[in-house]
Amino acid sequence: MGRTVDARALPPLAVALGDPAGVGPEVVAKSWEARERRRLPCFFAVGDERALSVIWRGPIVRIGTPAEATAIFPNALPLIQVDDPGDIIPGEPNTPGARCALDSLELAAGLARSGAAGAVVTAPVSKAQLYSIGFTHDGQTEFVAERCGIAGGNVAMMMVGPSLRTVPLTIHTPIAQVPGLLTIELIVSRVRTVNRGLQRDFGITCPRLAIAGLNPHAGENGNMGTEEVEIIRPAIEMLRAEGIDANGPFSADTLFDPYARKGYDAAICMYHDQALIPLKTLHFDDGVNMTLGLPIVRTAPDHGTAFALAGRNAARGDAMIAAIALAGECASRRLQACV
Amino acid sequence: MGRTVDARALPPLAVALGDPAGVGPEVVAKSWEARERRRLPCFFAVGDERALSVIWRGPIVRIGTPAEATAIFPNALPLIQVDDPGDIIPGEPNTPGARCALDSLELAAGLARSGAAGAVVTAPVSKAQLYSIGFTHDGQTEFVAERCGIAGGNVAMMMVGPSLRTVPLTIHTPIAQVPGLLTIELIVSRVRTVNRGLQRDFGITCPRLAIAGLNPHAGENGNMGTEEVEIIRPAIEMLRAEGIDANGPFSADTLFDPYARKGYDAAICMYHDQALIPLKTLHFDDGVNMTLGLPIVRTAPDHGTAFALAGRNAARGDAMIAAIALAGECASRRLQACV
Repeated sequence: MGRTVDARALPPLAVALGDPAGVGPEVVAKSWEARERRRLPCFFAVGDERALSVIWRGPIVRIGTPAEATAIFPNALPLIQVDDPGDIIPGEPNTPGARCALDSLELAAGLARSGAAGAVVTAPVSKAQLYSIGFTHDGQTEFVAERCGIAGGNVAMMMVGPSLRTVPLTIHTPIAQVPGLLTIELIVSRVRTVNRGLQRDFGITCPRLAIAGLNPHAGENGNMGTEEVEIIRPAIEMLRAEGIDANGPFSADTLFDPYARKGYDAAICMYHDQALIPLKTLHFDDGVNMTLGLPIVRTAPDHGTAFALAGRNAARGDAMIAAIALAGECASRRLQACV
Repeated sequence: MGRTVDARALPPLAVALGDPAGVGPEVVAKSWEARERRRLPCFFAVGDERALSVIWRGPIVRIGTPAEATAIFPNALPLIQVDDPGDIIPGEPNTPGARCALDSLELAAGLARSGAAGAVVTAPVSKAQLYSIGFTHDGQTEFVAERCGIAGGNVAMMMVGPSLRTVPLTIHTPIAQVPGLLTIELIVSRVRTVNRGLQRDFGITCPRLAIAGLNPHAGENGNMGTEEVEIIRPAIEMLRAEGIDANGPFSADTLFDPYARKGYDAAICMYHDQALIPLKTLHFDDGVNMTLGLPIVRTAPDHGTAFALAGRNAARGDAMIAAIALAGECASRRLQACV
C-alpha cells in the first residue's frame, strides 16, 4: 500500500466539512496543517467558513472554482462557501447546520462528478440531524451514489487501514435480521464490485478476496449454522467460475491475525461488527471508509461527528489525513489508467 | 497483568496432552523446554508417552503421583501415563487416541480437584473424535465443570491475552440463534461469575466490566435492534444494583482499540466472534482460554488440534506456555488467599 503514484495531474480534491458543529472542520484544518509532512494532494474545503474560524486560527481563502485551489493551497486552506448557516457553536448541532452539511456534501460530490474536483472526501454528518430536515438516505454513501446515478444497493463500503481492508455486506442491520438478508445474489454482486474496485483504484490485477463465514468456525460444515453451505459457498463458486479469486468461507475469528492478513487483499464480511471490530481494533486512528462502485473516488474518515469533542482541539486528524491521502492515490491511479 | 505472585507453595500443575495425534504433545514439550526462560511453574504431563516420544527427543520420566514431579521437572518432563492407545501417527486421529485424550482429561481434572495438582491445563482435543466414542458434553469446559460438580451452564469461558480479556456469553451458536438465547438472567449470571473470577484469580478488587451491545452501534437506542434496550440494559442495572461495576452496552466496534481497552478489566461479549475476533486479531499466538466459576483453576491454549501441523515441528508453543503460566499465577493467588 505504498504511495508510488504521481499525483501531479490530479485536480484538487473536494473535502466536505460535514456537520459544522462536529469535529469535521477541525480534522480538515489539521489535515491542511499536515499537508507537507504527509505529502497530501491539493484539496479545498466545501462548507461554512465560520465553522472553521470558530475553532481554528489558520489562514482560509475563499475560492469560486476548484482550479483556484492549486495556487492557494500551499499558503492557506482554500474554501468554497455554501449558504451561511448562522452562528456555529461546536458541540451543539442544529437544523441550519444540518442544511449546511447537506449543501456541502451535495456541492462537493457534484464537483467531483463533473471532473472539476479530483475526488470527494466527506467529513462526518449527524444522521439524526439530517433526518430532521427530510434526508431520506441511509447515509452519505447512498446519497453520493444516487447523485452519481448509481443505486445505493450497488455500491460497496470498504474500510481501509494500513494493514487491512474489510467490506461489510450488511451494515446498519440488527444482528437478528442479518441471516435473512444474506443471499447468493447479494454476495456475488458486492464481491464483483469490490474486485473491480481493487483493480481500478488500488492497481491490484487479480485481487485475492477472503470471504468470512457468518457463524462460529464458519459453521463447521453445517453443524453450527447453514448459511455457509447454502449461501456463501455457492456464491464463492459462482465468483470463481467468473475468474474472481474468491476464497472461503473462513472462520472469522482467525481471519484477521497478522499471518492470515497476508493471504488476501480484502476480507468480505457478513455484518457490520465482523468488518469493523478488526479494522478499528487494529487501526483506530487512521481507518478510512471508501465507497467502491462509483464513477468518482469517495472516501471518509472512519469516525463520527464526536460532538462531545468538538471545539476542544481534542480530535485527531489522522483518519481525515488518511482519507485525503487515499482519495488522492486512488484518483491519480484512475487518471493515469485513462491516459 | 504482571507476575508478582510467589508460586513456591503451589503443587505441580497437571497438563493433559489432548488428542495424541494433534499438536498437544508438541506444545507441551515446547513449554517444558521453555520452563526456565519463561519461569514456568512445575508441571507434569498426563497422557501417553509415545505421543510425546514420536515427535520429541527430549527427556521424559514417568511418575506415579504429582508430588514426584517437583524433583524431576528441572531435568525431564514428568509424565503420568494413561492406558496405552497403541501406535500414534501425528495428524491421523483415531478412536484409541480419543479414548486416551478423554482419560488424560479426566485424570488431570481429578488430580486438580483433589488438590494433588495445583491446576489443570488442557491441550486441544478433537470433538468429532470424542463424539465418536460417546462423549456427550459440548467440550472440555463442560466436562471439567461436571467433574467439579458445577453445571456447565454456570461457568464462564474467558479468553485472556496480554492486553485483553473477553467473555463470550454464547459460544458455538449459529448467529441466527444468538438473539433468542440472550436473556437478562444469562447476562446477570455469567457476569457475576466473571466478576468473582477476576477477584479470586486475578486479584482485582472491583473489576471493571464492559458489556458489549449485540447490534451495530449497540443498537443506537433501539433504532438498530432492541436487545440492548430490552435485555442488556436491564441486566446491567441489576448488576450495578448488586455493586458490580458493569457498564454499557457499548458499541462493539470501538470497544477493543488501545484507548478503550484501558477502561475495563474484561469485555463481556454477546457471541463467539465478537469475543474471539479482537482476541485473536491482537493475540493470535498467546491467547488463553480460561474457565471461571470452578473450584479449580483450568486454562487451555486458544488453538485447536491442528492435525495438519502435527508431527512437523511447526506448532508454536506460545499459547500453551501462556496457559501454563496463567494457571500457575491464578492458582498461586487462590492458595495465598486461603492461607
